[in-house]
Amino acid sequence: MQRAGVDRAKQMIADGIKEKLDFKNLGIDTSRTFRVVDFGCSVGNNTLSAVENIIEAAKYKHQLAQLENPLPLEFQIFFNDVTSNDFNTLFKLLPTLPKYFAAAVPGSFYGRLFPRSSIHCAHSSYAMHWLSKIPKEIVDSKSPAWNKGKIHCSGHVKEVVDAYSGQFRNDMETFLNARAQEIVGGGLMAMVIPGFSEGVNIFETGYGAFHDIFSSCLNDMAKLGLLEQEQVDSFNLAVYHPYVKEVEETIKKNDYFSMERIEEFCNPLSLMKPSVKVLVSSSRAVTGELLKKHFGNDAVVDQIYEHLALKLEEKYCIFDEAKHHSDIFILLKRRF
Amino acid sequence: MQRAGVDRAKQMIADGIKEKLDFKNLGIDTSRTFRVVDFGCSVGNNTLSAVENIIEAAKYKHQLAQLENPLPLEFQIFFNDVTSNDFNTLFKLLPTLPKYFAAAVPGSFYGRLFPRSSIHCAHSSYAMHWLSKIPKEIVDSKSPAWNKGKIHCSGHVKEVVDAYSGQFRNDMETFLNARAQEIVGGGLMAMVIPGFSEGVNIFETGYGAFHDIFSSCLNDMAKLGLLEQEQVDSFNLAVYHPYVKEVEETIKKNDYFSMERIEEFCNPLSLMKPSVKVLVSSSRAVTGELLKKHFGNDAVVDQIYEHLALKLEEKYCIFDEAKHHSDIFILLKRRF
Repeated sequence: MQRAGVDRAKQMIADGIKEKLDFKNLGIDTSRTFRVVDFGCSVGNNTLSAVENIIEAAKYKHQLAQLENPLPLEFQIFFNDVTSNDFNTLFKLLPTLPKYFAAAVPGSFYGRLFPRSSIHCAHSSYAMHWLSKIPKEIVDSKSPAWNKGKIHCSGHVKEVVDAYSGQFRNDMETFLNARAQEIVGGGLMAMVIPGFSEGVNIFETGYGAFHDIFSSCLNDMAKLGLLEQEQVDSFNLAVYHPYVKEVEETIKKNDYFSMERIEEFCNPLSLMKPSVKVLVSSSRAVTGELLKKHFGNDAVVDQIYEHLALKLEEKYCIFDEAKHHSDIFILLKRRF
Repeated sequence: MQRAGVDRAKQMIADGIKEKLDFKNLGIDTSRTFRVVDFGCSVGNNTLSAVENIIEAAKYKHQLAQLENPLPLEFQIFFNDVTSNDFNTLFKLLPTLPKYFAAAVPGSFYGRLFPRSSIHCAHSSYAMHWLSKIPKEIVDSKSPAWNKGKIHCSGHVKEVVDAYSGQFRNDMETFLNARAQEIVGGGLMAMVIPGFSEGVNIFETGYGAFHDIFSSCLNDMAKLGLLEQEQVDSFNLAVYHPYVKEVEETIKKNDYFSMERIEEFCNPLSLMKPSVKVLVSSSRAVTGELLKKHFGNDAVVDQIYEHLALKLEEKYCIFDEAKHHSDIFILLKRRF
């Protein structure tokens, strides 16, 4: 899923750099080092291809800039993700004859990670839908936003949507304020966030339908005594897929960045209807560890995915009519 | 062993920074970021304590410098080691409320790892005795430097010493030339290298005696048919502990650095006589993986260490008369 989105976004990012990056005002002449960060890099070939795309575009633009005394640029690339990310494996994927100096920076991107004004180009793809935490109302049985019976923001209950959306906006604001300190004036930030088109209800989409089925699967297992109902009620994903408007409003409130481009685009893969097997295995890759941590052991997680597969087979026709989600591409420039 | 040396060196490093670091000419005022690298950081608490010592000394000196408009410094600390180092574990040791921005840089320090003029202070402790490779004469049965029957530079054969020493000098030159590009004019580099005092033969020391016993243990096992003689002959450690003079001459040949201090010091732990158990377990921590890679499996490695323990018990009195090794502390400044 991410790969197809990254490929589509790559062209937009390359175009953005070529159009909007102004080397004459970037203060790069003296240090000759162009610093790039990938926030939420994960581990895989997407990681490397995204930053290599940025390097190519920056090199092209640097040559075009026709600077006096144009010394060759050196690139320092920082790969960021949470501390539990497998950086050892990422390091083994790095090219043996590197075109850039690579470094890894562990930690949540909802806080400061780099010195002041040290980054020229930031990138984040398919990472910012992970919230910093689950909004507390969601798991509070006394709150109207209690998300009983669901593991995600399904779009059925206004209070739940408001809680998730509020958390997303807060997190994005925190992210932008941290980055504002780290990115130099004139520096660019490109983001891709999975989201939904205006007017589409989350539960009408394949994403929503899948997680509604997942939720009901856990509830069935609780009724059968295979899981504790209380544990099912307290399991929620710290994930929110925003609408373009929410992203736009949050960015416009921020004084540090100008919005150079914001655009919804259709991830080619979201038009395909994945098989039950693919649905289950890709869900397990993302949520398997979270389930294991919450429910305590691998055996239970195996059971959950077996039940899920059966239930998906049964309800598979739902996906025929499901609306698809959109990805949101955003290009920001740090104001001087 | 390293910990005691690091503690002893810490004071020398702190003193070196306080005496020799000149913030007025370091070009740090505008970026306000002080960048430190630990080359060959490994994984452990020594790693963090070494860089924290540098940060404290730099902060102290920065305050003393009484700069006009002295904005608080921000620190970016790079932890470098080979790609196979366990950075995932290192990241888990980082303080939760960091006083610095941490990053990891994988790769051999015998090549470029950082952009030009981007580092203000470099540090390397107990890492540079690891050579970039085993000198090829050492494993060439037609060469007078063929190190038959030994796994290390024991000091018995002049040609073997020359080959190891030559490799050390080449590697150190390569190291200094790479660092010369990365460290800013006026920047400091502190190194601690395990070595030997002038006039001491390697085989007279505890270090030498231990590795002579280790060598004879492998040869015994080959005679018993437990290992292939050819495999024993081709196993060598890419390690060389230099004499101060060798380090001094190599540095003086380099135009980019001025020698601010070079000093032999006695690592307090080298005065102690470790038990056989400690000798075996610390050797296994360092060479276990190399033996496994060379001889093919864990069972053989277990056997080797069992034989080694017996042989050490038998010859333990050798250590009573052994001379001890020295550590070498070096402080360099990048010329402008």
